[in-house]
Amino acid sequence: MSLLKETVNKIKPIDKSLYDIAQRHLDNLTKPPGSLGMLEEFARRLVAIRGNKNPSIDKKAIFTFAGDHGVTEEGVSAYPKEVTKQMVFNFLRGGAGINVLARHAGADVVVIDIGVDYDFENVEGLENKKVINGTYNFIKTAAMSRQQAIECVEVGIKLANEYANKDYNIFGTGDMGIGNTTPSSAIASILTGKAVSDVTGKGTGITDESLQRKISIIKAGIKLNNPDPQDPLDVLAKVGGAEIGGIAGIVLGGAANRIPVVIDGFISTAGALIAYCIEPKVSDYIFAAHNSVEKGHTVMLQKLGLKPILNLDLRLGEGTGAALAMLMIEAGLKIYKEMATFVDAGVSNEVQN
Amino acid sequence: MSLLKETVNKIKPIDKSLYDIAQRHLDNLTKPPGSLGMLEEFARRLVAIRGNKNPSIDKKAIFTFAGDHGVTEEGVSAYPKEVTKQMVFNFLRGGAGINVLARHAGADVVVIDIGVDYDFENVEGLENKKVINGTYNFIKTAAMSRQQAIECVEVGIKLANEYANKDYNIFGTGDMGIGNTTPSSAIASILTGKAVSDVTGKGTGITDESLQRKISIIKAGIKLNNPDPQDPLDVLAKVGGAEIGGIAGIVLGGAANRIPVVIDGFISTAGALIAYCIEPKVSDYIFAAHNSVEKGHTVMLQKLGLKPILNLDLRLGEGTGAALAMLMIEAGLKIYKEMATFVDAGVSNEVQN
Repeated sequence: MSLLKETVNKIKPIDKSLYDIAQRHLDNLTKPPGSLGMLEEFARRLVAIRGNKNPSIDKKAIFTFAGDHGVTEEGVSAYPKEVTKQMVFNFLRGGAGINVLARHAGADVVVIDIGVDYDFENVEGLENKKVINGTYNFIKTAAMSRQQAIECVEVGIKLANEYANKDYNIFGTGDMGIGNTTPSSAIASILTGKAVSDVTGKGTGITDESLQRKISIIKAGIKLNNPDPQDPLDVLAKVGGAEIGGIAGIVLGGAANRIPVVIDGFISTAGALIAYCIEPKVSDYIFAAHNSVEKGHTVMLQKLGLKPILNLDLRLGEGTGAALAMLMIEAGLKIYKEMATFVDAGVSNEVQN
Repeated sequence: MSLLKETVNKIKPIDKSLYDIAQRHLDNLTKPPGSLGMLEEFARRLVAIRGNKNPSIDKKAIFTFAGDHGVTEEGVSAYPKEVTKQMVFNFLRGGAGINVLARHAGADVVVIDIGVDYDFENVEGLENKKVINGTYNFIKTAAMSRQQAIECVEVGIKLANEYANKDYNIFGTGDMGIGNTTPSSAIASILTGKAVSDVTGKGTGITDESLQRKISIIKAGIKLNNPDPQDPLDVLAKVGGAEIGGIAGIVLGGAANRIPVVIDGFISTAGALIAYCIEPKVSDYIFAAHNSVEKGHTVMLQKLGLKPILNLDLRLGEGTGAALAMLMIEAGLKIYKEMATFVDAGVSNEVQN
């Protein structure tokens, strides 16, 4: 049996009875019931996901997958393709946004070359998992073969298994890939059924005119490749990106290992949507970090049934929103584990009207 | 000259030219311009507030003011008044929500008795600044005298000065006071001009029937006392609370010392609104931590011209939202201070279309 199939088979629904146990404990804490809102929901979900009344999230990993996109030759991005490689080096030196915010959140950043069009050879600190030297231009041919798409997802699964074995207990996802809002919008349109123009935005900051071109290119790519909306691996292969496949693998592998996965913004959510269309039970294990500025993000989050934690107008990617959201999820768990109960604190909890 | 007057005179508008200097630095960092959204705005504001191109927020204090409310005898709260005192002891033992979240954010909690109806004598760790043994029931008489209202504000100002002298560089506000959404709704209605029913919610969780009674009581209190909407100290005295006055003092004292003040939820925002109506320039120095569930909060934030940082359905108070928001503000400052520039990182920033 393939690793992908085996992983999907391992994904079980979370134990909802643990929600109720966590809820009872939260209601004994010295605060009006429910008054810590989403923080309490984070705690209930962590208990149910981990299958443990006393879970920890003290080892955090953010997986930042880098890949290039053939479609950039159509001028869909404000930045040249070389920036993908340059940013990988920036990640490894600790100078990028994700490095700063991961340090703030106490998370380790795992940088993965899954599809950059550059030969890194033996660069220290980089996970060398290259599947492709940049995807093909999807308005001319499929972005990848089906086999390559599966390999990308399996790269993510293997990393999830490896880091689960190293006792990491919360994962975040991130991306780096000039041009990657273009395949993400294509995936969003195909898998949600929305029009391309309803799920395509300005990415890192293109002009109105370039946005119209980007929409036309996505439409042309979908028309040429005719991906099957019922077959997420076909969609990933034909219009996707290597890093999007890697992220899908982290989501599947996280769920199979009962590890919560905090998905970042638009690109990560496209990856999560691929995973969800492979196995819908993954949504039990996902936390949506934030609501990105990028059009189409909300549509995908609705399909996944997820409410974003933060609304800070972020649109950087890399896993930056995931790092920030981890701080809020951890806050919820600390409330659950550290607050005094009414009995311990000698506080009256008799509601009088 | 009174301390209050002297403090108000010290409040200067922030230096907007520092915004532009901070903006230029942010635009040199290895990310698309503006892609970290509100995080970048936090950094710009901190630079302008502190008047320093390289500000720090490494000493954080959250001031949690406790006070009782005579109006609780009308049954406006779900909890008995004794809970205020019990929760003060819980704060001092470190078991409350604010203790947990302040630890998470690296902030110190300063617990102040400004108006609790209980004699704490020499309880260790408590700031004894009592102005009143609980306010009077404002449907029978004014909640406090004008002199007491001024004293409450000056308690906050003195604490702000003291902690500024101890090199704290960011303040948060919080409250504990059974029944205190009632005076806060009264203040919101008077100072924004909105109907009482538009700014009154269920507080810690009263029934629909009790909500109707709460609205009637607030209306009756306003009618009896007839506070002057042009005179915020008159409003604070007649329908306010001691802790609300203390919070107003932290906002004024923070602004006078060029220290950013993160206001928590509904009650803290009522305090900030009192401060704003005394001196509108304070809004330059305020960060609104979150958008509380409590009806009326949004109305006050609009009046203050502030956008809430978090939307986590919180309604606990104590300063809990302020602690969480400090983590996001600090993230913005770390981005500003720790990220590599395009030149340093050898990343191309030439936009190509």
